[in-house]
Amino acid sequence: MPENTSEVSQIMAYCNQHNIAVTPRGAGTGLSGGALAIEGGVMLSTEKLNQILHIDEDNLQVTTEPGVITEVLQNAVKERGLFYPPDPASKGSCFIGGNIAENSGGPKAVKYGVVKDYVLNLELVLPNGEVVWTGANVLKNATGYNLTQLIIGSEGTLGVVTKIVLRLIPHPKLDSLMLVPFNSIEDAASAVSAIFKMGVIPSAMELMERDAILMAQKFINDYSLELDDQTQAHLLIEVDGNEDAILMSDLEKIFSVVEQFDCGEVLIAENEAQKNNLWRLRRVVGEAVKKQSIYKEEDTVVPRASLPELLKKVKLIGAEYGFRSVCYGHAGDGNLHINILKDSLSDEFWNTTLNEAIRKLFSEVSRLGGTISGEHGIGYVQRDFLDIVFSSTQIELMKGIKNVFDPNGIMNPKKIWK
Amino acid sequence: MPENTSEVSQIMAYCNQHNIAVTPRGAGTGLSGGALAIEGGVMLSTEKLNQILHIDEDNLQVTTEPGVITEVLQNAVKERGLFYPPDPASKGSCFIGGNIAENSGGPKAVKYGVVKDYVLNLELVLPNGEVVWTGANVLKNATGYNLTQLIIGSEGTLGVVTKIVLRLIPHPKLDSLMLVPFNSIEDAASAVSAIFKMGVIPSAMELMERDAILMAQKFINDYSLELDDQTQAHLLIEVDGNEDAILMSDLEKIFSVVEQFDCGEVLIAENEAQKNNLWRLRRVVGEAVKKQSIYKEEDTVVPRASLPELLKKVKLIGAEYGFRSVCYGHAGDGNLHINILKDSLSDEFWNTTLNEAIRKLFSEVSRLGGTISGEHGIGYVQRDFLDIVFSSTQIELMKGIKNVFDPNGIMNPKKIWK
Ligand SMILES: Cc1cc2nc3c(=O)[nH]c(=O)nc-3n(C[C@H](O)[C@H](O)[C@H](O)COP(=O)(O)OP(=O)(O)OC[C@H]3O[C@@H](n4cnc5c(N)ncnc54)[C@H](O)[C@@H]3O)c2cc1C
Ligand SMILES: Cc1cc2nc3c(=O)[nH]c(=O)nc-3n(C[C@H](O)[C@H](O)[C@H](O)COP(=O)(O)OP(=O)(O)OC[C@H]3O[C@@H](n4cnc5c(N)ncnc54)[C@H](O)[C@@H]3O)c2cc1C
Repeated sequence: MPENTSEVSQIMAYCNQHNIAVTPRGAGTGLSGGALAIEGGVMLSTEKLNQILHIDEDNLQVTTEPGVITEVLQNAVKERGLFYPPDPASKGSCFIGGNIAENSGGPKAVKYGVVKDYVLNLELVLPNGEVVWTGANVLKNATGYNLTQLIIGSEGTLGVVTKIVLRLIPHPKLDSLMLVPFNSIEDAASAVSAIFKMGVIPSAMELMERDAILMAQKFINDYSLELDDQTQAHLLIEVDGNEDAILMSDLEKIFSVVEQFDCGEVLIAENEAQKNNLWRLRRVVGEAVKKQSIYKEEDTVVPRASLPELLKKVKLIGAEYGFRSVCYGHAGDGNLHINILKDSLSDEFWNTTLNEAIRKLFSEVSRLGGTISGEHGIGYVQRDFLDIVFSSTQIELMKGIKNVFDPNGIMNPKKIWK
Repeated sequence: MPENTSEVSQIMAYCNQHNIAVTPRGAGTGLSGGALAIEGGVMLSTEKLNQILHIDEDNLQVTTEPGVITEVLQNAVKERGLFYPPDPASKGSCFIGGNIAENSGGPKAVKYGVVKDYVLNLELVLPNGEVVWTGANVLKNATGYNLTQLIIGSEGTLGVVTKIVLRLIPHPKLDSLMLVPFNSIEDAASAVSAIFKMGVIPSAMELMERDAILMAQKFINDYSLELDDQTQAHLLIEVDGNEDAILMSDLEKIFSVVEQFDCGEVLIAENEAQKNNLWRLRRVVGEAVKKQSIYKEEDTVVPRASLPELLKKVKLIGAEYGFRSVCYGHAGDGNLHINILKDSLSDEFWNTTLNEAIRKLFSEVSRLGGTISGEHGIGYVQRDFLDIVFSSTQIELMKGIKNVFDPNGIMNPKKIWK
């Protein structure tokens, strides 16, 4: 639990010299097993690197250490009227450093982009203990290779991020939230790209299958949202901005699109409490599913108009192999979390045959122009499937880069690749 | 002049086998000499790779070859109501492939970001002739290292980009343009960050020193814009959106900020013709300066609130070394183009002593948290100054990456580094 960059540097130099594996760890909320020290060695916690160092209101930037909880950082800048948008559903516990390492997303990504769109510069301790900055504190940069973007999403395999410079934007003053029930999940998914084609960019566009909502309600023991028997899926749609009139007109445009699909009665949240309730329901889905059964979560992402096709394939493959799935996710980005439930399936099926089904699913995703992780990373659990989306040439390039940063292979070994 | 990926691949494989240098070339508008075949060998022109392959209106994406002129691409998607924002002032002649290689910016970057913020996926021919895609056609991606962002801005030193997938956004329906004269250039620069602090994000925020405007007027022989004797600099400020009322309110907010500075009478463009005239004036500045004298253009970028300090330093260093400079650029991004004029200075001064002055200037930029190229790249002409912003460790990391892609060193050799 180092307390500053210099201690991180000393730890790394020592481990590098003695060939000891090092696994950086944020809050441990990662969903691909990246923060597990599967090779033993040193688990390097970033929890004491937890200071927000400087909020620069003149340049709309913040410099922070990696162990700050994402929501704490968001609230601190919001107090100055500033906005750091990337908001994983885990924002109340995950660290900003973990977010960098996973290139995390969240509901706001659809309008505001993901972590990679807000990082200007990183302080990185290399495996040999040397300390570098990856870029400069500027909005545009054409000076050398983009090391900053190379580190984002590299899952702790290239070095330890010890300082982070983020750009901020003015915080929008208003938002409105609507919940639209659909009588088929394909209809819900089709409405997604239809809304964008109307020229509206919502600040969130979340899809939840019927079962996802049911599990969430049970999990928090709150059944205030009435579910029609016909409802098969919901879209939770937020718009934001600074003028009431614009928000109203956006909502109307969205309404005019969704009513062309087979949908039920639209609910518009009337106050902050109702908004919070709806968002809470969405945010607990992940944990609610976990409560239900042992499960595997796939983090597929496709071009958004291909969502209906992907959903159809998920259910077909489920029927073929005999598993139940619950789907939800950031539909506006084409990012679908497919939760496969173990229920009473045999261990043998779960550990072997199921991988065949997942391969089939991922091949479908790849065929649709998508990929196997939109925001959770490859880490430990998705390594076996990398060959579906990458040729051996691509993998060799990435391994070559890894070798440049970490010739002794001590940095989070056996992650991303075997 | 290959006509497809396979021909590019064959050329590369041949050259790699025979150790022949290859320099990819777009339209040749680059400002850092990246497209010059300084080591001889093959000049690989992309001008016949000039097809827009697919405009995907369902997913708001376009797939294009690299030899398409940026403005041609922008117009083609605009016809479908779509917007590809990055707009270098050279957009009427530069290629989209060159834009990728330089991570180009332009006036719109201040609101919409630079090239790197729009690229989803690239087809790349490696130096050995193998063809890879760098990512997937999706809005978010946490699958392996971000090779896409590594290629953007790599100035043709890692491979030849042969296909490009860009994300698009809905085209804003309206824009307004205002020109604000200031009685000191520092005041103009100070107004820039004050405007952002008000919560307005203009869609362009360009700074032009008095001399820049005078040269531009002379260049196009159009003196319709009257210049007050007191005026030392102008800000050209654009706002865009879909509702007149919002644009008006943005303009008013901007007005309320600039009038707190020492400024003259604000001009608001009344029609498209007037807008085009103002933009034309801004766009020809580069070429107008070129006409004036032999010159060197520095592409400095700093956190935006440091612009006034940078400008002061430019003039101080100019006075110290006895050169004249004309400054203009994308002030909203903190990106200042400093044009040093040779006028009647001796060749000896120009080729030796001046480099000392530039070093001083760049060190200042670095001290302010900035870097030596915001959008033009390092290429051939800025290589000598790289050590000002990068440690030897950083440079070794980048060279290591270069070596992974191009072990024989045939790909645009002697660019970025010596
Ligand atoms: C209920 C729930 C909801 C979630 N919702 C979302 C969501 O909406 N969107 C989303 O994208 N993710 C989501 N996640 C996943 C997870 O929260 C994110 O991946 C998060 O970014 C992980 O942060 P962490 O601090 O917990 O990292 P950890 O799990 O501790 O580590 C993750 C990876 O980052 C590396 N790492 C951590 N810190 C550093 C550092 N300083 N330097 C180098 N490497 C480092 C680790 O080695 C590991 O590989 C959710 C998770 C849960 C449990
Ligand atoms: C008047 C004027 C105004 C300008 N204004 C701006 C501005 O506002 N913003 C800005 O950012 N720039 C500006 N520029 C600079 C220039 O236009 C950009 O850098 C542009 O992106 C270069 O494109 P090009 O096609 O001319 O590339 P070239 O000059 O031909 O090449 C530039 C670099 O890209 C590489 N390259 C080209 N194509 C490929 C490919 N397919 N694969 C791999 N590498 C490739 C070359 O090897 C070279 O290193 C301006 C230039 C001029 C002359």
